[in-house]
Amino acid sequence: MGYTESQIEGRNAVIEALRAGKTIDKIYILDGCQDGPVMTIKREARKQDCLIKYVEKERLDQLSQTGKHQGVIAVAAAYEYAELDDIMQAAKESGRPPFLFLLDGIEDPHNLGAIIRTAYQAGAHGVIIPKNRAVGLTATVARTSAGALNYLPVARVTNMAQTIEALKKEGIWFACAAMDGDVMYDVNLTGPMGLVIGSEGEGVSRLVREKCDYQVSIPMEGKLDSLNASVAAGVLAYEIVRQRRKK
Amino acid sequence: MGYTESQIEGRNAVIEALRAGKTIDKIYILDGCQDGPVMTIKREARKQDCLIKYVEKERLDQLSQTGKHQGVIAVAAAYEYAELDDIMQAAKESGRPPFLFLLDGIEDPHNLGAIIRTAYQAGAHGVIIPKNRAVGLTATVARTSAGALNYLPVARVTNMAQTIEALKKEGIWFACAAMDGDVMYDVNLTGPMGLVIGSEGEGVSRLVREKCDYQVSIPMEGKLDSLNASVAAGVLAYEIVRQRRKK
Repeated sequence: MGYTESQIEGRNAVIEALRAGKTIDKIYILDGCQDGPVMTIKREARKQDCLIKYVEKERLDQLSQTGKHQGVIAVAAAYEYAELDDIMQAAKESGRPPFLFLLDGIEDPHNLGAIIRTAYQAGAHGVIIPKNRAVGLTATVARTSAGALNYLPVARVTNMAQTIEALKKEGIWFACAAMDGDVMYDVNLTGPMGLVIGSEGEGVSRLVREKCDYQVSIPMEGKLDSLNASVAAGVLAYEIVRQRRKK
Repeated sequence: MGYTESQIEGRNAVIEALRAGKTIDKIYILDGCQDGPVMTIKREARKQDCLIKYVEKERLDQLSQTGKHQGVIAVAAAYEYAELDDIMQAAKESGRPPFLFLLDGIEDPHNLGAIIRTAYQAGAHGVIIPKNRAVGLTATVARTSAGALNYLPVARVTNMAQTIEALKKEGIWFACAAMDGDVMYDVNLTGPMGLVIGSEGEGVSRLVREKCDYQVSIPMEGKLDSLNASVAAGVLAYEIVRQRRKK
């Protein structure tokens, strides 16, 4: 698989891409634009549940690679997303307890790439990211994952809290990174586990947090609140690895 | 302390900065340039042991913010470096066993910033970086450290292997991150400890590695060789934290 992220510019090109079923992460549309082709794009985008951002002309001009965006720029995923069922199936077939990463709104592509790399190396079965308010599988993410994206399935879901609810019914327990949680060494993380990591600025959202079985924290000697999101994910993931090996 | 990294352009400005004792990380000089002022800059730079890079005119033009570089651009540190002695003094005063990070050639400023943040939060007493072949305390590093640079001393040394030799005499043990090392859970890391992390591409250099007491590895389930450097530093640092807390 290549690392090229494709950006599709212009009304007809975007309509064609949507109709051809290409995985579009995001569409930028000129704010206030209401004509026929743009309405078609909005309709098709909604069908596929892909994110629309309304922006000013200056932003589009800045994003444009061709200079001919006609008020519409679509960003296609560099990699194809997996289905949640595929991840659960892979977990079952592995003969090990399921181990999932759920990323509640990581916005920095370097962090997302580094976390996918960590998840793969730590033996996780897949990564779940939200459709909105988060970075998708862009070329930068693919590069930063150092190849892990070729091996580890990444699924996108519309509602992270509902996804957690559904996976709980399949026997998975959820541990959420939280500053004021129990120290990770004191929590039993050996079972079927979903590790929930929040966004760089906000941490895990309240709704998602409330669905989790455990709140776990990394002990901090310093005066800052947290570690970098990808470092925190790595430290927590390897505490799970350690406990599972010991067991 | 602010986050502004200063770039100094032009012969006289760079000579003045060097003579005023400003901490210069790196000087770019037009390759082949041999006139009086440039020779003065080279001499002053050598006195302060600061890195000189000989580059083509195109590179200087690209780096230049003023358009008037006259063949010389100096990059000043955004933060002042600490002395190694200050770090050892801080360790003694803390009443805890010394805990140092030694970074053998981290080149990505985001990684360096994230590692400084981790070192501070994990309770390390300081970070040691090499003068050459590595990124210094730039504005990006300061930003990515999320404020940790305000609290944690960072020292620069000319020769990492010699520094390890010297610190061994003060009773510090050195553990080096190595793919083929002993699994970190099986190594006793509770004593006075220097954690040595290699560069993103090359890992720890042979010379430095040979000076270390332990080679420690992070267990990997995936097919890749390694984790992101800042994630690996975090995982190893927190194994040290875990062992010390248990003890």
